Amino acid sequence: MQEFKATEHQHVRYNPLKDEWVLVSPHRCLRPWSGQTETAPDDQPPDPLNPLLPGATRSSGQRNPVYTSTYVFPNDFPALLERVPDPPPSDHPLFRSSAAKGTCRVMCFHPDSTMTIPLMTVDEILAVVNEWVNQLKELGRKYTWVQIFENKGAIMGCSNPHPHCQIWASSYLPNEPRVKERCQKEYFIKFKRPMLLDYLKEEMIKKERIVILNAEWVALVPYWAVWPYETMLLPINGKPQRMTDLTDEQKRSLAEIMKQLNIKYDNLFKCSFPYSMGFHGAPTGPSAAPGDSPHWLLHAIYLPPLLRSATVKKFMVGYEMLAQSQRDLTPEQAAQKLRECDDVHYKAKK
Amino acid sequence: MQEFKATEHQHVRYNPLKDEWVLVSPHRCLRPWSGQTETAPDDQPPDPLNPLLPGATRSSGQRNPVYTSTYVFPNDFPALLERVPDPPPSDHPLFRSSAAKGTCRVMCFHPDSTMTIPLMTVDEILAVVNEWVNQLKELGRKYTWVQIFENKGAIMGCSNPHPHCQIWASSYLPNEPRVKERCQKEYFIKFKRPMLLDYLKEEMIKKERIVILNAEWVALVPYWAVWPYETMLLPINGKPQRMTDLTDEQKRSLAEIMKQLNIKYDNLFKCSFPYSMGFHGAPTGPSAAPGDSPHWLLHAIYLPPLLRSATVKKFMVGYEMLAQSQRDLTPEQAAQKLRECDDVHYKAKK
Ligand SMILES: O=P(O)(O)O[C@H]1O[C@H](CO)[C@@H](O)[C@H](O)[C@H]1O
Ligand SMILES: O=P(O)(O)O[C@H]1O[C@H](CO)[C@@H](O)[C@H](O)[C@H]1O
Repeated sequence: MQEFKATEHQHVRYNPLKDEWVLVSPHRCLRPWSGQTETAPDDQPPDPLNPLLPGATRSSGQRNPVYTSTYVFPNDFPALLERVPDPPPSDHPLFRSSAAKGTCRVMCFHPDSTMTIPLMTVDEILAVVNEWVNQLKELGRKYTWVQIFENKGAIMGCSNPHPHCQIWASSYLPNEPRVKERCQKEYFIKFKRPMLLDYLKEEMIKKERIVILNAEWVALVPYWAVWPYETMLLPINGKPQRMTDLTDEQKRSLAEIMKQLNIKYDNLFKCSFPYSMGFHGAPTGPSAAPGDSPHWLLHAIYLPPLLRSATVKKFMVGYEMLAQSQRDLTPEQAAQKLRECDDVHYKAKK
Repeated sequence: MQEFKATEHQHVRYNPLKDEWVLVSPHRCLRPWSGQTETAPDDQPPDPLNPLLPGATRSSGQRNPVYTSTYVFPNDFPALLERVPDPPPSDHPLFRSSAAKGTCRVMCFHPDSTMTIPLMTVDEILAVVNEWVNQLKELGRKYTWVQIFENKGAIMGCSNPHPHCQIWASSYLPNEPRVKERCQKEYFIKFKRPMLLDYLKEEMIKKERIVILNAEWVALVPYWAVWPYETMLLPINGKPQRMTDLTDEQKRSLAEIMKQLNIKYDNLFKCSFPYSMGFHGAPTGPSAAPGDSPHWLLHAIYLPPLLRSATVKKFMVGYEMLAQSQRDLTPEQAAQKLRECDDVHYKAKK
């Protein structure tokens, strides 16, 4: 039989952070697409009554200040509230519920609704990073987990194109970080080193999945990536466990790599690239302290759905929901395509 | 503080089959929706060149027979192939890949492209069930896992409205069944009874999550459901571990409850209700034998994305991808809404 080529032959890859496998079927790229297409991301019309604008009145009746940089306010329709009665103790091991307290905030990145991260200046993005650190510091004192995330684009369920993210803080450790906590801890006990530091070291040698490298961060397509153009940002110096551990250089460098990566994303299919992104670091809460989680390394993840063009996404449906994630191009191919994308935004060139 | 009401107050629920939690935020139903909407499911136009029609020539050049009931053929763009070279052994614990062999088939349910399960007769659906059993028998001899699944509707990445499902068989046990295998086994060791049999017993007493009950099956919204109108079909007599264990009564009764449930689904938002559905039973393969997996109970799951109407779905995005699934109505509320749906299809009434 032929020699194995990762770019041609199906195989499964293991994600040690999540203890999960992904099916890689690169030969499937040839499949034609005649199914549902999306509206091109740039076609989302700006809303004249946009409640996120400086000075606008929101549905709660509250009025935004005339902000000029970032602006944080409580989500008017929060999935998590601070004061709710606790459920009674469960009466059966198969019917377990538990109390959940929390708070949800919205954070505007910029006063201008037509702005996006790749079009903002590094200083403007740095203001976003600094505010994330503030939020994590404040909410992390009380809550076990503070999830900062951005849903970008209508295709990602984002109902407002104004540049913003959300912050949901909870009294419980959610599934995804709970699994990452367990896997990183097991690795640390076994190998006496943080998993992601070992991973980073290897990726810096192998290079084939690296998209961008700057003074403090690397953007790479993880070996076990599920979404077609999924990427991960890892700090290359020191071992920050949480956003609150970042040095000033790491913060500015993070703003820079976020801008660089997002320019490449937008250039890939010549559209405002949709995604969900967010940060994962060591859990927080009243008993958390700097340096208490040596098995953790802070990282950001970008989960973009587009596969072939601005209008054709990867559907994570039947097989993926019921059995296992499946991807059509290899992580190395995705990294190469992103590397080859121009570093100047396609809109800036006109 | 007020008394706890599950229909009003947020809480988290545990899924013992998957060792995962879901955030239930029923107060969030009040949230207005101004984001992306979908094309109503019935608007998907029939394709005159539909390659799934009896007698049609497919992209592979192969011609379908003039079939009159079900028809199974190899997927022309399979994610899993039978003969591919194996990847070399991994050189690092964080870069593990493994061989994956398999096969992908497509199964048409009916020769008529405008047909769907709720509109088919029970006898026609029974032919589908019987063919599923045949496929499982044949492919299960060789493969560890045979995933039968249906992606229904353009919103679920289904590119052809012709009634059909897919069957992907693999040499590996995929993530989802691997976790269910582990959780059911642990429960069985601890309690000496199959988890889902215990669960079924309780649900039959509690009744509040039951949607339909017939002679051999129950359709219910699981206590830990993630998707708004997610349901599970469980056999109420005996302990079938795989589809191949089903009696003739169970097969006919399955066809009946599938029709009944899908009529309710279509009536809920007066549209052809989209979903991904599939079956989970004990793993198969050369060493599998009837009765060898007493911790398993065969079940079907329906994962439909619609939340508020035929065009507004639940987006599983930022928080859900990065932290934990979140739902806006309780499983009990969903079960009640489905129970109240008419048992006669809205199209049959005109
Ligand atoms: O094979 P199909 O129907 O073209 O493809 C669809 O179902 C597959 C299995 O769930 C997914 O991997 C694809 O992303 C989806 O578009
Ligand atoms: O709060 P939003 O932006 O209206 O809502 C969006 O993000 C939330 C968090 O990921 C999801 O639960 C919603 O389904 C989605 O529509």
